[in-house]
Amino acid sequence: MASEKKLVEAITSMEKDFAQWYTDVVKKAELCDYASVKGCMVIKPAGYALWENIQKELDRRFKETGVENVYMPLFIPEGLLQKEKDHVEGFAPEVAWVTHGGLEELQERMCVRPTSETLFCDFYARDIHSYRDLPKVYNQWCSVVRWEKTTRPFLRSREFLWQEGHTAHATAKEAQERTEQMLNVYADFCEEVLAIPVIRGQKTDKEKFAGAEATYTIEALMHDGKALQSGTSHNFGDGFAKAFEIQYAAKDNSLQYVHQTSWGMSTRIIGAIIMVHGDDSGLVLPPMIAPTQVVIVPIQQKKEGVLDKAFEMKEALSGFRVKVDDSDKSPGWKFSESEMRGIPVRVEIGPKDMEQNQAVLVRRDTHEKQMVPLDELKERIGELLGQIQKEMLERARVHRDAHTYTAMDFDAFKKTVEEKPGFVKAMWCGSRECEDKIKELTGATSRCMPFAQEKLADTCVCCKKPAVKMVYWGKAY
Amino acid sequence: MASEKKLVEAITSMEKDFAQWYTDVVKKAELCDYASVKGCMVIKPAGYALWENIQKELDRRFKETGVENVYMPLFIPEGLLQKEKDHVEGFAPEVAWVTHGGLEELQERMCVRPTSETLFCDFYARDIHSYRDLPKVYNQWCSVVRWEKTTRPFLRSREFLWQEGHTAHATAKEAQERTEQMLNVYADFCEEVLAIPVIRGQKTDKEKFAGAEATYTIEALMHDGKALQSGTSHNFGDGFAKAFEIQYAAKDNSLQYVHQTSWGMSTRIIGAIIMVHGDDSGLVLPPMIAPTQVVIVPIQQKKEGVLDKAFEMKEALSGFRVKVDDSDKSPGWKFSESEMRGIPVRVEIGPKDMEQNQAVLVRRDTHEKQMVPLDELKERIGELLGQIQKEMLERARVHRDAHTYTAMDFDAFKKTVEEKPGFVKAMWCGSRECEDKIKELTGATSRCMPFAQEKLADTCVCCKKPAVKMVYWGKAY
Repeated sequence: MASEKKLVEAITSMEKDFAQWYTDVVKKAELCDYASVKGCMVIKPAGYALWENIQKELDRRFKETGVENVYMPLFIPEGLLQKEKDHVEGFAPEVAWVTHGGLEELQERMCVRPTSETLFCDFYARDIHSYRDLPKVYNQWCSVVRWEKTTRPFLRSREFLWQEGHTAHATAKEAQERTEQMLNVYADFCEEVLAIPVIRGQKTDKEKFAGAEATYTIEALMHDGKALQSGTSHNFGDGFAKAFEIQYAAKDNSLQYVHQTSWGMSTRIIGAIIMVHGDDSGLVLPPMIAPTQVVIVPIQQKKEGVLDKAFEMKEALSGFRVKVDDSDKSPGWKFSESEMRGIPVRVEIGPKDMEQNQAVLVRRDTHEKQMVPLDELKERIGELLGQIQKEMLERARVHRDAHTYTAMDFDAFKKTVEEKPGFVKAMWCGSRECEDKIKELTGATSRCMPFAQEKLADTCVCCKKPAVKMVYWGKAY
Repeated sequence: MASEKKLVEAITSMEKDFAQWYTDVVKKAELCDYASVKGCMVIKPAGYALWENIQKELDRRFKETGVENVYMPLFIPEGLLQKEKDHVEGFAPEVAWVTHGGLEELQERMCVRPTSETLFCDFYARDIHSYRDLPKVYNQWCSVVRWEKTTRPFLRSREFLWQEGHTAHATAKEAQERTEQMLNVYADFCEEVLAIPVIRGQKTDKEKFAGAEATYTIEALMHDGKALQSGTSHNFGDGFAKAFEIQYAAKDNSLQYVHQTSWGMSTRIIGAIIMVHGDDSGLVLPPMIAPTQVVIVPIQQKKEGVLDKAFEMKEALSGFRVKVDDSDKSPGWKFSESEMRGIPVRVEIGPKDMEQNQAVLVRRDTHEKQMVPLDELKERIGELLGQIQKEMLERARVHRDAHTYTAMDFDAFKKTVEEKPGFVKAMWCGSRECEDKIKELTGATSRCMPFAQEKLADTCVCCKKPAVKMVYWGKAY
């Protein structure tokens, strides 16, 4: 058993050092690796397969709402980036600049897209003429670059993969509806597919996107009590339209500005999957997103008939994503490895099981074992995967709720943030001053003003002036 | 009918000006548009949907051969690009250089990947230790940048989308097998899915990839008689492995270099689809790749029941990709538009058809019409789509064969290239001198040394010395 032990020992325990645990899991589950370019990552097969499943499911949900995919250029000429004032201020300090093409210096330098609002706007200004051209509900899957100083795999890297939706509408109402609709697509996706419960709400002005009128967010709580912004949806109003002169002829022939939205989810969400569900044995993947849902581990696989039986079981499990681990490692090593990789269900089959026409099922999330007659295998695995999916969401919700606190005055707020990692719900007057002060004195930032408002008190937790919103606060990734 | 005419008149005829016809189709079928960055393109929904279908089908075929997807960084540090001599010479003149990250100048400039051999090699050098780590059969879907001077939509642009597979193997034999296997995946995909017949063969040393030991290619003939290289597969031998020190401990504990391959297909193939199948009414899409396979055009759609019937027919055609065009345009305009977009089958349904319980089917490729009883609609459409797919391949093959010539001496060769656009088959001595001379004097380049060799003569068509290979020559995109 020495080797199994070694594999597990390679992970720092969560309680001891959560940050190190995270890095260990990313590395040992072979999700990604560092690259020669500082701050960039190599996404390895196990990590990319997760992203492919996320893409497939999210893209399907997008298309059901009428989204069409397109592809915009990688580069933004400097002049184009500068067209919207707030936007360029937000992004210019962290973009990578291309100055030479081939052997020649460019007349105008270009940045590598940190996000593509300016490119979509430039295109829409040329492509939209009449109300008949609206709405435009476009999305692209691509990589973007932000020259961050400190980086962590998936959570913050200089290049990351994402999708960015960019829409243009005839009316402000339609834009607002689309903004909320896409936020709900993200939230439903997180809860139904990733088993991650999220708080849906609006960002404060301080935290909103550069150039947006309003930013909506879904916020998830990680196992260590820190929040992770998991997807955002922005209503731009007609701000970009005015900066880029995106106008259409309405039915009455008047010239109108379009109303725009954008919304994105990135490979960062893989960090959330790791930090919401993982444990000291490694990754724990929700069945719906797991690249491999079931691993079959043959016991004494050199004995006649065992491997054949394992592959026969795999055949019988058609419709599920199943692998047989027939490598020459020991069963114990295979158990540890499949746990590290977060495979939801392990099936063990050996000569003794075969005699009794049964197999052992082991849940990754609870480590529970059960014996199952082989002729019930497929049905039981189907039930078990559904049960795991449901219970993982429930467990994450219980964890989040148990780490969501309420603070009625500033001292209690400060003490809670210091001593109890999690969300703190507290009333807020709406002023930037209080938001800044709270951050400065406690380290917590406003995560969102939830759609589901509660009136905890009449006054701001910070300045005691009349409160306008209940806000979720917390330390965040 | 004035408006329909106008739509068709917007396309230059192929015979009059093929290049202009191509540009017109790209624009009018709304496949792509120019961007603010010179030489880059905006791929619009109709173009991107084609690429998505290509990706889906190709990716499925890759995975059947054991390919795993990954993602490597966008940037290559200059020092890394320079590690393999031939490779850097081939690519350095046409890369885009990033010199600044945020507000700071980079210590070492980085290029935006023109291709990712160097990144995969750098990763493999760290990730491969033992024979147990082999083979690595990785692929990525991404965009690459090559700072070309002259560009054309899909065919040659400064940024394009592609997949690049990069594999590492224990033996030279395995690498060679993988190289050929992937070339055959591309060739089968082109023929079975895109209905584009291809010549499979090897590139001459002059035409091979920078850093490769051998490059294999599939070459297709466009409607204007020019060739298009449609996919390539390279065997690198251990050249990159030596430059990057990618070694593994063999079973006998000796240290060995890996043998590598790479292979790619890009959005260029969309150019081939346009130029092989298109006609003077616009795009013609093979059913298997068409985002919309069937368009239902209601006639007198304001009459009671017509639109309902159209949508009912759409429901009945489940399993096919069907759209109902219920816009407020005239039927004639809708016909032209669906032809421009290359939709394989048009179904017309109006009050008279409804009375007779039938519909009109029109093939995009031949413009043939037929009446079909509604209760046979699904079956007949299924047959028709299969028939169109098959006949499009056959028609392209007949065109290619009719434009493939044989030249036994240099005068005949030159005359054929001048007067008869197409492939010219001719014997070659294997020397670079003859290849250069043929290009200089005729404008034709060697397309490939086909796997299916024919001995047309004993001597080189250029120098009359003993011939070693029969080569396909031609002018190319």
